[in-house]
Amino acid sequence: MDSYLIQVNGRGDHAPMRDVHLKSTGNTISPGKAKGRKPRWAVRASEMSKKTFNPVRAIVDTMKVEPNPKKSMISLSLGDPTVFGNLPTNDEVTRAVKEVLDSGRCNGYAPSVGYQSCREAVAAYYNCPEAPLKAQDVILTSGCSQAIELALAVLANPGQNILVPRPGFSLYKTLALSMGIEVKLYNLLPEKAWEIDLEHLESLVDEKTACLIMNNPSNPCGSVFSKSHLQEILAVASRQCVPILADEIYGDMVFADCKFEPIATLSTNVPILSCGGLAKRWLVPGWRMGWILIHDRRDIFGNEIRDGLVRLSQRILGPCTLVQGALERILRRTPPEFYHNTLSILKSNADLCYAALSAIPGLQPVRPSGAMYLMVEIEMEHFPEFENDVEFTERLISEQSVFCLPATCFEYPNFFRVVITMPEEMILEACSRIQEFCEMHYQGAEGAQDLECDK
Amino acid sequence: MDSYLIQVNGRGDHAPMRDVHLKSTGNTISPGKAKGRKPRWAVRASEMSKKTFNPVRAIVDTMKVEPNPKKSMISLSLGDPTVFGNLPTNDEVTRAVKEVLDSGRCNGYAPSVGYQSCREAVAAYYNCPEAPLKAQDVILTSGCSQAIELALAVLANPGQNILVPRPGFSLYKTLALSMGIEVKLYNLLPEKAWEIDLEHLESLVDEKTACLIMNNPSNPCGSVFSKSHLQEILAVASRQCVPILADEIYGDMVFADCKFEPIATLSTNVPILSCGGLAKRWLVPGWRMGWILIHDRRDIFGNEIRDGLVRLSQRILGPCTLVQGALERILRRTPPEFYHNTLSILKSNADLCYAALSAIPGLQPVRPSGAMYLMVEIEMEHFPEFENDVEFTERLISEQSVFCLPATCFEYPNFFRVVITMPEEMILEACSRIQEFCEMHYQGAEGAQDLECDK
Repeated sequence: MDSYLIQVNGRGDHAPMRDVHLKSTGNTISPGKAKGRKPRWAVRASEMSKKTFNPVRAIVDTMKVEPNPKKSMISLSLGDPTVFGNLPTNDEVTRAVKEVLDSGRCNGYAPSVGYQSCREAVAAYYNCPEAPLKAQDVILTSGCSQAIELALAVLANPGQNILVPRPGFSLYKTLALSMGIEVKLYNLLPEKAWEIDLEHLESLVDEKTACLIMNNPSNPCGSVFSKSHLQEILAVASRQCVPILADEIYGDMVFADCKFEPIATLSTNVPILSCGGLAKRWLVPGWRMGWILIHDRRDIFGNEIRDGLVRLSQRILGPCTLVQGALERILRRTPPEFYHNTLSILKSNADLCYAALSAIPGLQPVRPSGAMYLMVEIEMEHFPEFENDVEFTERLISEQSVFCLPATCFEYPNFFRVVITMPEEMILEACSRIQEFCEMHYQGAEGAQDLECDK
Repeated sequence: MDSYLIQVNGRGDHAPMRDVHLKSTGNTISPGKAKGRKPRWAVRASEMSKKTFNPVRAIVDTMKVEPNPKKSMISLSLGDPTVFGNLPTNDEVTRAVKEVLDSGRCNGYAPSVGYQSCREAVAAYYNCPEAPLKAQDVILTSGCSQAIELALAVLANPGQNILVPRPGFSLYKTLALSMGIEVKLYNLLPEKAWEIDLEHLESLVDEKTACLIMNNPSNPCGSVFSKSHLQEILAVASRQCVPILADEIYGDMVFADCKFEPIATLSTNVPILSCGGLAKRWLVPGWRMGWILIHDRRDIFGNEIRDGLVRLSQRILGPCTLVQGALERILRRTPPEFYHNTLSILKSNADLCYAALSAIPGLQPVRPSGAMYLMVEIEMEHFPEFENDVEFTERLISEQSVFCLPATCFEYPNFFRVVITMPEEMILEACSRIQEFCEMHYQGAEGAQDLECDK
């Protein structure tokens, strides 16, 4: 029987197989010579798997998260509206899937881009005069994550670059780097309710820019772009001839006082792949039902991008047919009150959370207008104990058992993200603990005065 | 407003962005100079999307398939056991998902590798002394297609090669080429019930060989490897130090007179990624529930491959949670009679089909032992009218409205694949039409004798 040299590579170096160091144990055969012989086992994970890197996991997994045993843990970190049980999906949604199960007619393979009837249903749901949609403009995917993966995979080649918001959802970078696509981060401006720094955005474009990823409403910011700002973004894309990948998974999840505008409805020429799904608005993220809407008013994508998406969809054959089969009924029958109810809960949570955090010394929350999040600035100069947002949130766990995601996860240090989907009493409890924590560690003006006295 | 030059590239060439020809219209700006300006729209589908190519679609879509209007169409082409309605899944399977829907407890995100409880359930189901499995050895995927995609993506780098069966399922090549992985086809031997030509297999291994893909029971052959043959395959893999990607989606789908041996139960050292799922045995291919079982008795994969699979799974976050939540109950409660019933139908269909086709001049069916398929050789010398299997099956459609997949789809010309999941009467009707067709076009010994007389 053979003997083994196990070549485990934990150091993430990407030496290809032939560079494997071969221990000489008697009759070693060098790979080149004896044709087709690999004398030892040397199985390595692919470079692509090593380049697939989720910063949130990397940061969170390395955090020292020992909660305070005297206090129950409150996690405000997970962007999953279902975890607290206070935001169930609508009965119509569940019933639609049951109907499909009973019919037994959706157990077989669907076309890799989804059932024609479902593509029609999605097209009809989002179709409007400013941005007409037909069935062939819809690709159904296994969640919005796969929608973004396919959109990115069809638009960009290795060596090209994409423009990604900072702060922004980490998946964009994770997918891009795994595909060998360079990521250029453009700034969002907290003082302007997280609008895009358009000058910075445009300055990043070069001849290798494959697309601009924009996310509206925003995770992690909870911001919603105005019609005029969206038009400014389109103007940049149009000037620079850069197509847009619009992550609109939080589409229509905006509070009463503002309106969500799908960017495609404002585009006169810029081609857009809009990614969405059932996850957030219908409160069933685990069901993995997503879609790409192809908006191409001037035939700039042409068949090229359409065919590319169809080919890519054949790799894993689309989303679960039980949910596909239910999609038409879900879109048609979910009562408007359901959406309103969700939004009014999110809105009052946002107000509650914003008010409570605004009153805390050393914190500067930014008021959200939609989605399920709120970003909070930490005035680090007032918390000299802590190195950064990661350390701040670590200590918040160990002392108060409250877990907020450090915004370093979104490439935006010295902020943290709060999820606002939990029940009211939990928000109040969390905020009062955060207050206690900040009052404990805040170093105010006195400290500064002392310094002055020293002079 | 800008003017456009639409650069659609239908010729599949891979000229990168900067090679785009720019029409000069007045103030043309050359990409290099004016920093970051692309003067014209030139959106192209990525090379990867162009390299993602499904031969079955390519061949079938170009077939002239005008059925005979006088005869109802009978399609024996689709590897989907649900299409004829005679093989419904079991009520327990459906009930399990309903239970999950009612509970409302599986609407949120699951870990990207699947719920821990489901991984435990799958591990427990396939665990055995010869090939022990724990939860951490199971990765849940969106169908077996994604299982194969992830297994391939973690084992092989661009520029390496993989060994793939001929005839074989086309997805292996589709995925490999899209990732820049070379495909080397090893022969299966029809005269030996489609066993692997081991000498040929071993001759293909070189220092760039990343893995050996084997498929047992086989699509398209319907063959099932014996224990001794599996041991021979393992011996080659062991000598050459090549890990195995075992596509076992038809596992346990074998007829009474033979036994399915998971290759991992026979491996003493060769590390194996076994891909499977609910699709075929539980008759719900559309549900997209698949898994990878990691067998690594000698710690040759180590954490390296495990961690790689976990990272890759984070790209699209696993299968639909409704099916995940039902998995444990499906595996535990599906009654044995259900499996037996399916297999006895397939077995009697296989016998019926084999007997009928054996009696037809110019055809040589190969008797299957499992899965849902049967391969038939066309003695082309007796059908001089037809160029190849594609033309033969085309004419079979236009004259008899019977559609069988030409085995060119599986890299195996002059055979066609018959699916054996349809109702008995449909098989008989199809076979009698195939007989009529062959008798019509068969050129027998007489032709040969005439030739001799001419001398």
